[in-house]
Amino acid sequence: MGYFRPAIEAMTGYVPGEQPPPGTPVIKLNTNENPYPPSPQAMAVLHSLDSEWLRRYPDPYGREVRQAVSQGLQVPEDWVIVTNGSDDLLNILIRACAEGHSRPVAYPTPTYVLYRTLAALQPAQVIEIPYPENYRLPLDELVAAQAAVTLIASPNSPSGHSVPVVDLGRLAQRLSGILAIDEAYVDFADTSALELVQQHANVLLLRTLSKGYGLAGLRLGFGLAQPELIAGLFKVKDSYTVDAVAMAVGAAALRDQAYKDQRAKQIKASRTRLIRELRRLGFTVPDSQGNFVLATVPMGSAQALTQALKQRGILVRYFNQPGLDDKLRITIGTEAQNQQLLEILQALLANAHSLN
Amino acid sequence: MGYFRPAIEAMTGYVPGEQPPPGTPVIKLNTNENPYPPSPQAMAVLHSLDSEWLRRYPDPYGREVRQAVSQGLQVPEDWVIVTNGSDDLLNILIRACAEGHSRPVAYPTPTYVLYRTLAALQPAQVIEIPYPENYRLPLDELVAAQAAVTLIASPNSPSGHSVPVVDLGRLAQRLSGILAIDEAYVDFADTSALELVQQHANVLLLRTLSKGYGLAGLRLGFGLAQPELIAGLFKVKDSYTVDAVAMAVGAAALRDQAYKDQRAKQIKASRTRLIRELRRLGFTVPDSQGNFVLATVPMGSAQALTQALKQRGILVRYFNQPGLDDKLRITIGTEAQNQQLLEILQALLANAHSLN
Repeated sequence: MGYFRPAIEAMTGYVPGEQPPPGTPVIKLNTNENPYPPSPQAMAVLHSLDSEWLRRYPDPYGREVRQAVSQGLQVPEDWVIVTNGSDDLLNILIRACAEGHSRPVAYPTPTYVLYRTLAALQPAQVIEIPYPENYRLPLDELVAAQAAVTLIASPNSPSGHSVPVVDLGRLAQRLSGILAIDEAYVDFADTSALELVQQHANVLLLRTLSKGYGLAGLRLGFGLAQPELIAGLFKVKDSYTVDAVAMAVGAAALRDQAYKDQRAKQIKASRTRLIRELRRLGFTVPDSQGNFVLATVPMGSAQALTQALKQRGILVRYFNQPGLDDKLRITIGTEAQNQQLLEILQALLANAHSLN
Repeated sequence: MGYFRPAIEAMTGYVPGEQPPPGTPVIKLNTNENPYPPSPQAMAVLHSLDSEWLRRYPDPYGREVRQAVSQGLQVPEDWVIVTNGSDDLLNILIRACAEGHSRPVAYPTPTYVLYRTLAALQPAQVIEIPYPENYRLPLDELVAAQAAVTLIASPNSPSGHSVPVVDLGRLAQRLSGILAIDEAYVDFADTSALELVQQHANVLLLRTLSKGYGLAGLRLGFGLAQPELIAGLFKVKDSYTVDAVAMAVGAAALRDQAYKDQRAKQIKASRTRLIRELRRLGFTVPDSQGNFVLATVPMGSAQALTQALKQRGILVRYFNQPGLDDKLRITIGTEAQNQQLLEILQALLANAHSLN
């Protein structure tokens, strides 16, 4: 007998985007962090924490965060589960619900690659349904999959499109399993599917503080669903995965909605300018509802361009897979960072023969 | 089809020890926290972190912590996996290796209740082998179980005994699956099984910063094993479960071994005194290698005594199960806390008729 389960022996594991050590002089546009710091109120809490916060176990129920979410989004506290980023909640969800061929996981592609990794870990059968070119939700195919868990990222990465709430509502209505709506990027979007949580007992909404709140280093996320669903997920959640520092600092960030909204507004304005300028350079760039754009390179290889940018101190994300391998996913940076990116891209494209 | 897998529907979930909100005026001797604050050097790092630490994703490989462990324990860096407390590593281990009846989990009892919960989640068959009264390791029975994962807590909770390293070595030799040695309490013990990691490819040693380092709120733990085992576990580990704050602060605590050792020495001296005084009050108390003692009450009900202590502002741990239901597990507090506990116990026992 080998040490590991066959499903684990067979898999390769998720490869995260490159995370250079802090202090590395690099413009980091590869993992969709917020280019702006978190709320000063959150930083003030961090710097005021005394040693009792570290010495004692954290609250396993995350009550301070639940309260902040409850007040911010006008949902009851027992509709909230607090997790170690939304990745932790995705993990909990698939572990609680999916299993083999009888309880598969379904989602439209391309989307967040972690969904596939988490299903492989379980293992649970994966049903991937390609988005059509216009990114309309493949509603009938998703319903036909009869999955225990159907995952829809909206806004979706790397495409940047949002799924209309009315389509998500129709899907929830027709599914017998859980519809998980991954709203990691919702703070940069025009709409949210929040209302569906009240309308459908099978809808779980996932949120994170890693993007809109500028707190990717802290690992804090949460889920919203009706209490019966939350209670089931809670059985699978480890008691202490969310640490006391993350909860205190994250709750302060959640209470400062005005700061988060103002930064999101800046990023959305920068997104409009970046898309316009990238198009001017010849890239094909669809509109985006996230804090990133997916840009098809006008000439040469996207992989070579990614490498050339890296050599010049700018990290962007390249996906080596069909349908994405001629594209770059570029996180919206500060205005200065975006400007520097555009200048370097312009110079590189002028010497396009070096990009093959 | 229900939303959840049958294994999840059937289980009740782990119930963590009571964690009152910070600031609650209580003497908390119920979840084996260190009564002393973490290293001042760790606190200084916490208060010096800038917003970049929070804005960016943490290092998925935990390199700063790996380095600190490597230097502190003289093991190569690729023998270390950094996790969200050692609970996270237990979860990863069982998820990576255990499955149904073909790959069971075995351990001697009584021990850490989470082992059973994690196996039920998977689900994997559990083989529980009661310790004999003298707490000698049931070696032959554990070997006969042929488990994919054999778990031994040493020092063990709630008993407080350590398993001799020579017995653990014999067990490792005879097992074909993984022997996980949970050393959560090792900082309060006279011995460690660290040498077994070098001698046996199937040994995983688990450590945490929650006890000896006084950092339960931070959620940082690590595992030590040969690189092939570490690599397999790494496939199951989420990339970002350990946050950037925990890593920076935890690494500083790991580098300050002198502080940790000095606090452990104080706690061991208090343990000796507490055991002596509890025995004087009539409790039966075996020696302990942890930062807690398991005390059999001299008269009346242990559950009633737990409640009476709680009413007087002292939390201790009561386990409502055969073999433990006449005992209290009491964390070693500061000298002042232990003194207060002893005075209240003496008064309660003088009115023992109220404890039935």
